[in-house]
Amino acid sequence: MTTLDRSRIVPFLDAAGADGRRDAALAAHGRVIDGTAAGGTMLGWRRLVLQPDVDLIARVADLAAEITAEADVLLCIGIGGSYLGAQAAIEALTPHFERAGPEVLFAGHHLAPAYHRELLERLVGRRVYVNVISKSGTTLEPALAFRLVRRALDVPPDRIIATTDARRGVLHDMAHDAGYRRFEVPDDVGGRFSVLTPVGLLPIAVAGVDVYALMAGAGAAAGAATHADASHPALAYAADRHALHQAGFATEVLAVIDPRLRGLASWWQQLFGESEGKAGRGLFPATVQYSTDLHSLGQYVQDGARNLVETFVVVDGDEPGPVVEPEERDADGLDYLAGRSMADVNRVAYEATAAAHADGGVPNWTFHMERLDASSLGDAIYMFEHAVAVSAQLLGLDPFDQPGVEAYKRKMFELLGRP
Amino acid sequence: MTTLDRSRIVPFLDAAGADGRRDAALAAHGRVIDGTAAGGTMLGWRRLVLQPDVDLIARVADLAAEITAEADVLLCIGIGGSYLGAQAAIEALTPHFERAGPEVLFAGHHLAPAYHRELLERLVGRRVYVNVISKSGTTLEPALAFRLVRRALDVPPDRIIATTDARRGVLHDMAHDAGYRRFEVPDDVGGRFSVLTPVGLLPIAVAGVDVYALMAGAGAAAGAATHADASHPALAYAADRHALHQAGFATEVLAVIDPRLRGLASWWQQLFGESEGKAGRGLFPATVQYSTDLHSLGQYVQDGARNLVETFVVVDGDEPGPVVEPEERDADGLDYLAGRSMADVNRVAYEATAAAHADGGVPNWTFHMERLDASSLGDAIYMFEHAVAVSAQLLGLDPFDQPGVEAYKRKMFELLGRP
Repeated sequence: MTTLDRSRIVPFLDAAGADGRRDAALAAHGRVIDGTAAGGTMLGWRRLVLQPDVDLIARVADLAAEITAEADVLLCIGIGGSYLGAQAAIEALTPHFERAGPEVLFAGHHLAPAYHRELLERLVGRRVYVNVISKSGTTLEPALAFRLVRRALDVPPDRIIATTDARRGVLHDMAHDAGYRRFEVPDDVGGRFSVLTPVGLLPIAVAGVDVYALMAGAGAAAGAATHADASHPALAYAADRHALHQAGFATEVLAVIDPRLRGLASWWQQLFGESEGKAGRGLFPATVQYSTDLHSLGQYVQDGARNLVETFVVVDGDEPGPVVEPEERDADGLDYLAGRSMADVNRVAYEATAAAHADGGVPNWTFHMERLDASSLGDAIYMFEHAVAVSAQLLGLDPFDQPGVEAYKRKMFELLGRP
Repeated sequence: MTTLDRSRIVPFLDAAGADGRRDAALAAHGRVIDGTAAGGTMLGWRRLVLQPDVDLIARVADLAAEITAEADVLLCIGIGGSYLGAQAAIEALTPHFERAGPEVLFAGHHLAPAYHRELLERLVGRRVYVNVISKSGTTLEPALAFRLVRRALDVPPDRIIATTDARRGVLHDMAHDAGYRRFEVPDDVGGRFSVLTPVGLLPIAVAGVDVYALMAGAGAAAGAATHADASHPALAYAADRHALHQAGFATEVLAVIDPRLRGLASWWQQLFGESEGKAGRGLFPATVQYSTDLHSLGQYVQDGARNLVETFVVVDGDEPGPVVEPEERDADGLDYLAGRSMADVNRVAYEATAAAHADGGVPNWTFHMERLDASSLGDAIYMFEHAVAVSAQLLGLDPFDQPGVEAYKRKMFELLGRP
């Protein structure tokens, strides 16, 4: 289970308010459990891991096996929650450089011209399956990319999978008329909570990740959360960050110490940014990857404006990696590290960073994941979902709406002259 | 030349203070030009583009040609300024998916165990050149990666290039003793300003970028800046952002609308974060790529805490990319876009976003790059360097030091038991 180290947070909190913070978090948590939370019709992200639809997961896994056998490329067309969850799991759980099985590529997650030209060039002559993911089918970026792909490539309809609304919408109707295969986006699950629906599961499975283990990890976390007390990581984190926000902290920096978790950080950024960035409220969610970004943002975090909090995500049981070996002449002066693994040195760098930042006035938590595997990732995903549902309520917000996302879309459609 | 659109900034500024802001920016600019700025011994980033060492650039280009002919991989070992500039230029100016010539890989930019194991596995049996980049040679991340690589691969000394101090230091001495080839990191150029020294130029040239054009673009920008008035983009930007920071804005979001500029955004993040994040001051530098991040951070930017400013970087003369074609049945309802290119639609999405965010209370500038080529990138690099040198002085800071970066290093070396 993902655990939380609060030792470098507690000194920054007002001890007198601890009982009130605990009670508020427990009350918000209770509303998530009993379904009376703001936006309570959108709690399907709990349902779908507590009562997993094993037939559905098997259908996803079977189709993934077919794609693995038949395709060179799975092209996933989607944006936001229809993209970030799959990217997070694939980056976390597959190798950096080479992976067996079909290449998983993304489109429709932006509008850049060169990218889409190069992508189409790369797909010509290869065996392509397309997974187009959009609840409505009207979001411009994926709809446009899907039109480009339909025009440029002759993909048979049974090699197009539409993950969309069960009953209505542009993409639903196109899939019905053209004979695409279909998966449903449940009505009670918002985009940023959809990674454990077919939205995320199909690409993740094609990348070779064990989606049964991913679901089981999330399910176990959801079961444990049902009976949580205030010391549960999701509740404690939510209560602490609310207190720090109230005290004037402006920005939360999520720090991962392994590049495989960059995607999880981006997923977290949407989860918290869209759930809480409303009505003039919310900590600004920023992400860093250490130690890379210690040599870019480290100076600021250590010594810039003192309105930052920091959340580390650390994998405890990681592979050791290469071990430092002694050299005949200690020319670089590193022999004092001989016998230590990269994982060990990386861990010490994290510990030094967390301590230095706390000394510099940056309160920081650490989430510890036991391992980096599908089950642990499922656990962490559920934990952050639960945390944001509690946290947004403490701000007096509906965690599940995103009214501000419409503003640029309205202007864009106006400027584009949409009828 | 990179130009600046301030039309969505000016309404947020106090008009009465305009003269004072202009005079302060001009004075700080004058100290950059005449060398009396704080940290004035570190102005070599101007010298090296105003009086380029053509023999040095030719040596870099010649070695790059040798590497292109002889190597499968150039492994660049470096962190911070020894990594971000090269990454920025390579991402901006080479294709997303496939590029001719040697693969350029990075190491020593973090300590993650799985990455370094996989990297070593990937290098075995391939023709590898190594470029190890470190002023001192004692920065732990690159020093450790370099030791791992020396141990795991049998790279001949003449295929190792050390980019390091001219006269002293661990890496200088190792290079001298082992017979590595060498380039110098100039004494008057800090890490985050070093992209146009051999630190950045060698990897960039190996990736196939025209480094002469890159230098020429930067040189022309430096020449023009010498006689700048207060309307120069670097000065106007510095003056505006200082005024907004003084008015209580906390975070600057750099928004690129093309994934090829993500690396430039990361380079900018170090440039501003390390130059200004000191003594409790500075705007927190965050980065986004639209429209991807409109579907993650867009909600927050539109409607969250009102302490954000936003800086767009837009390429005006980009390739059009695929064009939307009409369909027989307008099933997706996109026929109203028929005949428009992706570049055109992407541009409208940017315009809508900038307008919507200004309406939502987020002052925003736009930097317009004429094209995305080596010369334009050199121009933009110089412009941002000049801007931060002015901007940090307005905050009363030395733009060229980074005292806070030492804090985690001290703790880390203590915890690791370095003698």
